[in-house]
Amino acid sequence: MALKGILERAREGAGVPVAERDVERALAALLASEDIWRVIDLSGVPVMALVRVLYALKDLGYLDWDGGRLVLTPKGRDLVASLGIGPKLELKCPHCGGRGTALGPVEKIAAKFREIAADRPEAIQDFDQGYVTEETTLHRVAFMWSRGDLYGKELIVLGDDDLVSVAAGLTRAPKRVVVLEIDQRLVDFIRDVARKENLPIEVKQHDLREPLPPDLKGHFDAFFCDPTESLQGFMVFAERGIAALKGPGGAGYLGLTHCEASYGKWREIQRFFLEAGAVIAELRDAFNDYVNWPYIDHMRSWPHLPVQRIPGREEIWYRSALIRIELVEGSHIEERRYEGDIFSDEEAATT
Amino acid sequence: MALKGILERAREGAGVPVAERDVERALAALLASEDIWRVIDLSGVPVMALVRVLYALKDLGYLDWDGGRLVLTPKGRDLVASLGIGPKLELKCPHCGGRGTALGPVEKIAAKFREIAADRPEAIQDFDQGYVTEETTLHRVAFMWSRGDLYGKELIVLGDDDLVSVAAGLTRAPKRVVVLEIDQRLVDFIRDVARKENLPIEVKQHDLREPLPPDLKGHFDAFFCDPTESLQGFMVFAERGIAALKGPGGAGYLGLTHCEASYGKWREIQRFFLEAGAVIAELRDAFNDYVNWPYIDHMRSWPHLPVQRIPGREEIWYRSALIRIELVEGSHIEERRYEGDIFSDEEAATT
Repeated sequence: MALKGILERAREGAGVPVAERDVERALAALLASEDIWRVIDLSGVPVMALVRVLYALKDLGYLDWDGGRLVLTPKGRDLVASLGIGPKLELKCPHCGGRGTALGPVEKIAAKFREIAADRPEAIQDFDQGYVTEETTLHRVAFMWSRGDLYGKELIVLGDDDLVSVAAGLTRAPKRVVVLEIDQRLVDFIRDVARKENLPIEVKQHDLREPLPPDLKGHFDAFFCDPTESLQGFMVFAERGIAALKGPGGAGYLGLTHCEASYGKWREIQRFFLEAGAVIAELRDAFNDYVNWPYIDHMRSWPHLPVQRIPGREEIWYRSALIRIELVEGSHIEERRYEGDIFSDEEAATT
Repeated sequence: MALKGILERAREGAGVPVAERDVERALAALLASEDIWRVIDLSGVPVMALVRVLYALKDLGYLDWDGGRLVLTPKGRDLVASLGIGPKLELKCPHCGGRGTALGPVEKIAAKFREIAADRPEAIQDFDQGYVTEETTLHRVAFMWSRGDLYGKELIVLGDDDLVSVAAGLTRAPKRVVVLEIDQRLVDFIRDVARKENLPIEVKQHDLREPLPPDLKGHFDAFFCDPTESLQGFMVFAERGIAALKGPGGAGYLGLTHCEASYGKWREIQRFFLEAGAVIAELRDAFNDYVNWPYIDHMRSWPHLPVQRIPGREEIWYRSALIRIELVEGSHIEERRYEGDIFSDEEAATT
């Protein structure tokens, strides 16, 4: 409720839109720096909206800047603690001028994650599986953290052969992680790991062609998924993910390849995001690297390949972009029920 | 015309869309590797479309794979030379698993570029100027190169206080670079550098509120711009850029900040891109770093700042995302004429 109060105050007479998430982003930045320019940079909030938030925080006794530094008052520190907001992390690669990503605190759980992942169930074709490298999963979790979608947040993972839930859980950053997974082997595996490691992960066996269980609808701050790439299959994942979000400010992560999706299909998907009330906040091509799956010589495109050589397991050729969307409005989603094969369309290559 | 022939052959009986740019991307990948998996990865073409292109190239005598390697024939090598296609460059940062960008061959011109840029005209408020770091300009050019939008291409730069044209020209990669710039100081500076260094750059003094000169309309493979960020101002740049492109496969680069644009505004802009026939191919937040401009204490947001400290010149706080769009259709752009102030809207902070 405190957040709403700050928001109302910031919006009073403001000539610009101020979003609830702007307040949260400002607070995360204020936890990371007391310098005005760093706070502007770290917050990612439009300056004219940010100054409204800063004045609102001061008026309400959460912030002070009499000494030329932006300092959260004890009341302000209590507020961020009660809201479960952590300091903004940049996690930029230091070698490319910050244009790449760094693991930061996720580095600490990397060894443990690799150890756990060593015993994972192998990818099978039935559910169009094919998991990413362990390094990719770790970078995904670091990326979510740096975007404010992990620490103190409720995350839902739709299909999790990549074990994003496990890596996220190991960081102890999220408040709650829920996994919906169709494959009983993965349900058992993740459940087992969660119990042994005492991770805040709940796993439910669920077929995403069915709408979300009602108790999960509208309950999450962020969703993560790596959809099957037929246009319909992608939409199924995106629909469920968006339906799981609490509302504006909620974020979604999705993978999308070139291997199985033309730019024409990308455009259809992007149109869907915008119509659903979301903005495309980031789109990083070739972020996700995939380990070659054992059924590669049974995939749809195999007989069409001019040279049929089975690549080494870590000889990476299948990659996907990481897309982050954020709800600006709505959402405008009505969940539908799907039937039959959602894995195939004419561009499908691996199913 | 050879490209059209390959395209027609590839499309015969194809169950998937095959774009002209797919052929070009396949050829660039084939120049960089003879291995099927690397060619799939490097091309970024959907596998089911790529195999159509590969068979078309073979049928027409440009490609051979009898030895298990994909080898361009002498006729194929003549073709890529005549089309001005260069080998695909990845330019991935080796330190973050390739999630960041590397300069690659652009490194070679870095010292020269910095030497030239040392004498650049200072940023002035009249045209909402504020240039990026030299490192940023170099990374932009490397990025364009790696995306196939530089080598052998015709590039138009709309407003160039960042000196993108100069860095691009110094690489000797593009076929032609045209700059439209309103500021006579920059027109003179870039023209002067181009003459001294013998760079393939043409500079025209032009106010972008006016439609493109007719001889530039529909003549370019790619455009680059860093628009002013009022919604209208952004649209002016985007409209002119898209109108300058030859057609499908044409690419555009634009910068967009959080400092002066809410996600609501981002969404409006993205809707415009999609309606204009483009896809958002990449969106890398905080790619562009800006040097602080001398009029910082005269910018619109200054009196609203809680702490009014003038930051050091390279104390970077103003950054923008790099967006790459690509035309899938059309374009569906009708150029309009604009009047008056295009720099301001309620979210403007620096004008």
